[in-house]
Amino acid sequence: METALCTGSPLPRKMKALIPEVSVSCSGGFPLPCYSMDLQKYFTEKRAAVDQALDAVIAPESEYPASIHKAMRYCLFAGGKRLRPILALAAAEAVGGDGRTILREACALELIHTYSLVHDDLPAMDNDDYRRGVPTTHTVFGEALAILAGDALLTEAFKLLAGGGGSGQHAAPQLLTIIELLAEACSSRGLIGGQVVDLESEGKAIDASVLDYIHSHKTGKLIIASVELGARLAGGSPDQVECLRSYGAAIGLAFQIADDILDVTGSSAVLGKKTGSDQKQQKATWPALCGLKEARRRQRALCEEAVAGLAAFDEKADPLRFIARYIIERDS
Amino acid sequence: METALCTGSPLPRKMKALIPEVSVSCSGGFPLPCYSMDLQKYFTEKRAAVDQALDAVIAPESEYPASIHKAMRYCLFAGGKRLRPILALAAAEAVGGDGRTILREACALELIHTYSLVHDDLPAMDNDDYRRGVPTTHTVFGEALAILAGDALLTEAFKLLAGGGGSGQHAAPQLLTIIELLAEACSSRGLIGGQVVDLESEGKAIDASVLDYIHSHKTGKLIIASVELGARLAGGSPDQVECLRSYGAAIGLAFQIADDILDVTGSSAVLGKKTGSDQKQQKATWPALCGLKEARRRQRALCEEAVAGLAAFDEKADPLRFIARYIIERDS
Repeated sequence: METALCTGSPLPRKMKALIPEVSVSCSGGFPLPCYSMDLQKYFTEKRAAVDQALDAVIAPESEYPASIHKAMRYCLFAGGKRLRPILALAAAEAVGGDGRTILREACALELIHTYSLVHDDLPAMDNDDYRRGVPTTHTVFGEALAILAGDALLTEAFKLLAGGGGSGQHAAPQLLTIIELLAEACSSRGLIGGQVVDLESEGKAIDASVLDYIHSHKTGKLIIASVELGARLAGGSPDQVECLRSYGAAIGLAFQIADDILDVTGSSAVLGKKTGSDQKQQKATWPALCGLKEARRRQRALCEEAVAGLAAFDEKADPLRFIARYIIERDS
Repeated sequence: METALCTGSPLPRKMKALIPEVSVSCSGGFPLPCYSMDLQKYFTEKRAAVDQALDAVIAPESEYPASIHKAMRYCLFAGGKRLRPILALAAAEAVGGDGRTILREACALELIHTYSLVHDDLPAMDNDDYRRGVPTTHTVFGEALAILAGDALLTEAFKLLAGGGGSGQHAAPQLLTIIELLAEACSSRGLIGGQVVDLESEGKAIDASVLDYIHSHKTGKLIIASVELGARLAGGSPDQVECLRSYGAAIGLAFQIADDILDVTGSSAVLGKKTGSDQKQQKATWPALCGLKEARRRQRALCEEAVAGLAAFDEKADPLRFIARYIIERDS
């Protein structure tokens, strides 16, 4: 799945204009600038680092009570792209920091994201049997363990963030700020609020403002918090943090629109879950509201906006620019 | 329900020996020392303070999306005794602090406790329709909103704890320690682990060690964390914190045994939920394992141990001593 992050193919003409600072180092004589294999390596390495750190955080499967630790590990290592932690690491590096110093905190983002997926997939919510090509947690472990595994991942996220104080890597007041902003992003005024409105909009005619609310809360808030976490912990200036928040808002929305588009156009074999499920559940989506063409236009405009907002950053922000491109090109 | 906290009646002979430091200020000419009405007032006032603080923390019912805020408020204001926040306030005062300075953090304990009840009551878990005399959250709002309301309360708890840094009331490193210890208490190695083993023990013959695991994790860990939170934030010495942790462990277990006993002997009208449900679900309980008499003996021994462990504290620890008595006497 990770190869989708860098295809090595030339950038579309429109994207060329979007990413003026991109470093050109590809081999093969492409006539247009393309992303180098180094960026593919960047994402592969970051993902491996996140996976390794997550593995160290969660109790081993054998630890009593084994069933909950098996369930937690099952959903956590079920093929996630680790987009949110990688965004945090990339944001930390964009402001001149070292991603390794925020790896622990970046992992908390993945724990929270995974908890939200496990609960969203439950029969009482979106009732999804498959995600990323494998059966969902409740399908394998039953509803009770799926609910508890989600609860445990959310709890572990805050433990991880608070436990960082002991290492002296980050100042305690800064960690408290991060915990507060993450909790706010995941609260009834954030991620949970988005899921509530999403559920309540099923089968109803809704307008663009409600759809924007759903997307910006269900997906956007945690993505903004991800880049903000990285930028703040790495010592980014208030201006840099604000620029990166805007970047996060734009790609967060673009990512959710991409999800909706893939549900209409994607291959279920590649996506690892049933396609057309949004339509079947009469879910509010951009393609349903304004058509595929307008959804694609809006998605692209958001990615352009995201990249344009990074103009003040040097090549250390290239991974962030690349993620904006990946959102348009991704097929899973 | 709060009147059960202080009946004004003479202490049983056995309890007299347990609580040598108790202040005697009752009117009415009782031949034996009894708890004064001041203690009843103490609990009523503390509960009111906690309720008021909780009301200020949770978004109003009218705030969009209204359904989730209604569900959160419904379960949070459904007649809870506020035992955990009151324990925290009482522990803070026992070490010479002012309970008001930790009210914010004490509220986080009630948010966490309420989240755990809402999730435990779900059809996939204990499938309880009533609690404290009112229909459970999922019965009123549906399963999806009950799951999300629980998630939101847990998230809000950590937001509340982290947000306290800004007030300057407590040092940031201390708040991080509190967040970490609370998250640990609620993790798969704590409260969640206890619920997992409880669910998996239904209908099985289990021994006392498993039952102790269930009780000490499902109830004990959060109660220990409650007194520890209060004692630490109020500047208790390491020795005092350790004493209070032992007190918490003893009353936590006693409280859970009391719950099991009430399920056998209690009035469903007073309890506000069906009695006999543990037996029906073939749940692991002390009365089931060793009989009512032995369960009562163990409960009383634990309360004696709890009070004996407070010997080094002066009368400022009386509310804690009183809570140990309340656990034996409570009828709901």
